[in-house]
Amino acid sequence: MILALAGGVGGAKLAEGLAAVLPPDELAIVVNTGDDFEHLGVHVSPDLDTVMYTLAGINNRANGWGRADETWNFIEAVGQLGGETWFRLGDRDLATNLLRTNALASGRPLADVTHELATRLRVRHRILPMSDDPVRTFVHTDRGRLAFQEYFVRLRCEPRVVTLEYAGAATARPPAALAAILASGRVEGVVLCPSNPWLSIAPILAVPAIGAWLASSGVPVVAVSPIIGGRAVKGPAAKIMAELGADVSCVGVADHYGALVGTWIVDTADEAEVGRIAALGPAVVVTDTLMTGPEVAARLAGRVVAALRD
Amino acid sequence: MILALAGGVGGAKLAEGLAAVLPPDELAIVVNTGDDFEHLGVHVSPDLDTVMYTLAGINNRANGWGRADETWNFIEAVGQLGGETWFRLGDRDLATNLLRTNALASGRPLADVTHELATRLRVRHRILPMSDDPVRTFVHTDRGRLAFQEYFVRLRCEPRVVTLEYAGAATARPPAALAAILASGRVEGVVLCPSNPWLSIAPILAVPAIGAWLASSGVPVVAVSPIIGGRAVKGPAAKIMAELGADVSCVGVADHYGALVGTWIVDTADEAEVGRIAALGPAVVVTDTLMTGPEVAARLAGRVVAALRD
Repeated sequence: MILALAGGVGGAKLAEGLAAVLPPDELAIVVNTGDDFEHLGVHVSPDLDTVMYTLAGINNRANGWGRADETWNFIEAVGQLGGETWFRLGDRDLATNLLRTNALASGRPLADVTHELATRLRVRHRILPMSDDPVRTFVHTDRGRLAFQEYFVRLRCEPRVVTLEYAGAATARPPAALAAILASGRVEGVVLCPSNPWLSIAPILAVPAIGAWLASSGVPVVAVSPIIGGRAVKGPAAKIMAELGADVSCVGVADHYGALVGTWIVDTADEAEVGRIAALGPAVVVTDTLMTGPEVAARLAGRVVAALRD
Repeated sequence: MILALAGGVGGAKLAEGLAAVLPPDELAIVVNTGDDFEHLGVHVSPDLDTVMYTLAGINNRANGWGRADETWNFIEAVGQLGGETWFRLGDRDLATNLLRTNALASGRPLADVTHELATRLRVRHRILPMSDDPVRTFVHTDRGRLAFQEYFVRLRCEPRVVTLEYAGAATARPPAALAAILASGRVEGVVLCPSNPWLSIAPILAVPAIGAWLASSGVPVVAVSPIIGGRAVKGPAAKIMAELGADVSCVGVADHYGALVGTWIVDTADEAEVGRIAALGPAVVVTDTLMTGPEVAARLAGRVVAALRD
C-alpha cells in the first residue's frame, strides 16, 4: 500500500493520477485539515473536499476548488441578508458541508464522515483526514496572526509570512483507520504530493504519530516538487518561500524537506537543478510534472509508483 | 395599532394587504412558530419566512412557500450524498435559514433575528414570532403522534387527525417587543387572518400571555374565514375540520372560535350562511375574500380595518 500526503489542488491532481494506476486497496490519501474552519455555522474542509471531488470526477477544473456545474444563489442571498460573503460556498458544495457539520455535531469522527461522503460520490480509494481532532493553521504575518482562511481567501495571501503555526497538531492523533494502516506494516512507500510544503504537507507531518512514524518506519519517500521553473503551479508557495528566506526553486523545496525524501521528482524545466538536489542526498527523477489533465497525472503517478517500487 | 395573527400562505396574503393599507407603526403581524423545526441542522421557520418573503415581495407565488426565482441545487446534492430530501430547502431560502440558525445559536432571540432579516429585505412592518421560546405543534393521528412537518410535508396531511398538541406553548412567553405592544394599550383591534384555525392560529392563542390578553383586553376581533364555499383555499383545513367532526364551512369556523370573534368576514360565495353565523353572535361582513393578488388582498384588508375601526 502507498500513502499519499496531499493538500488541495496539486495534491488532488496527483491523487487522481495515483487512483488511476493503483487499486483501492493499494492507496490511501492522507489529507491536510489545517485549512478546515467553521464558517456560517458549517464545518468546511477545503482540502478534503478538493481531493474528494477530484477523485469523484466532479471537481471544478476552472476554479481549482469546489464542484463542477456549481451555482451561487445561496451565497448571493447571504449577501442580500447582510451575511459574510468573502468565503464563497457554492449551492451544491454546501450540501457536503452541511451534512458533514451535522454528522460531526452528532459525534461522528471526521474520517468516518469523509468516508461516507466519498463513498456516496462513488470514490473507491480511501481519503483520510490527517486527524479527527481539530488542527488549525495560523499564519503569523506582518499584519499579525491570521486564521488560515483569513490569510488565504479574505486577504488573498497578501500579508508577508513570518512563520506558520499548526494549532492543535501537538495533541492531534491520526484517525483510527490511518493509525491501523501505519501499524500494519503494509505501507511500502509514501508520496509527498506537489502541495504547498508549509500550508499543506507540514500540518500533516505535525501530527506527532504521523511525523514520528515517517521518521522511524524506514519506508521510501518520493516527493514531487510543487515548484517548477522557480514558480508555484498554483497558490502562494513561491511567495511564502521567498518571505521565509528560502531559495524559490525545486532545490529550495528539497532543502526544506531534507533527509525525509529519498527520491525527488522534478520537472524537465528544472533539469539543470538535478545536480544541486542530488548533492543534498536524494535520488532525482526528471519528468513532466505539470498535470494539465488526468492522463498526464496518471502518467506522472506511474513514475512516482515506479520510483517507490523500483 | 392593529395586530394580525397569521400562519402561512393565507395569513401572509392578508398581512400583505394590511401592510398596503396601514403604515408601519399601525400594524404588527404575530406569526405562528408551531411549524418551526430543526432540519439538516438548520432552524426552519416556515410561517415567519412566508410572511417575510411575501411582505418583501420576493415570495414564490407558484409554490405558495419559499422564495421567487429559487433554485434547488443544494437539496439535489443532499440527495446525491444520501441525506434527507423530503423537506425541500431552496438555495436562496437556505441563506435565511442558516443565518437564523447561527444567530439563534449565538443566543439571540428569534424576534430580533426575524426583525434583522426582515429589515435587510426592506420589510417595514413589524413581523413578530408568537414567542422566542420553542413551541412545536404535534399532530395526533390514526398513525400516531407526528411532528408537524412529518404530518404536513412528509405524509402530505394524509393521516387522520385526532387532536392537536402545541408542545411548549404552556410555558412560552411572547417576545419582548410583543409583550410591550400588548401592555401598551395601543392595540385597537386584532385580525385573525384566514389561516388554518388549528394549525396556525391556535398555537398563537395557546401562548398564555397572548390568549389571556385577547380574552381580557376587550379589543375588537375581526376574522376572515379560511373556508370559502365549504373548501379551504389552500391546505388541509377542510380535511382536518371534517376529521375533528366540525361543520366544514365558515359557520363551522365561526363556531370553533366562538365568542372570541366580534366580526366575521365571509366570502360572497357564503352569503347564504350569514344568518347562521349571526345566530352565534358575531356581526358578519360579506365581501370577496379570495386573495388572487395583492390588489385584492389590499381591498380585503381595507374592509378588515374598516370593520375594526367602525
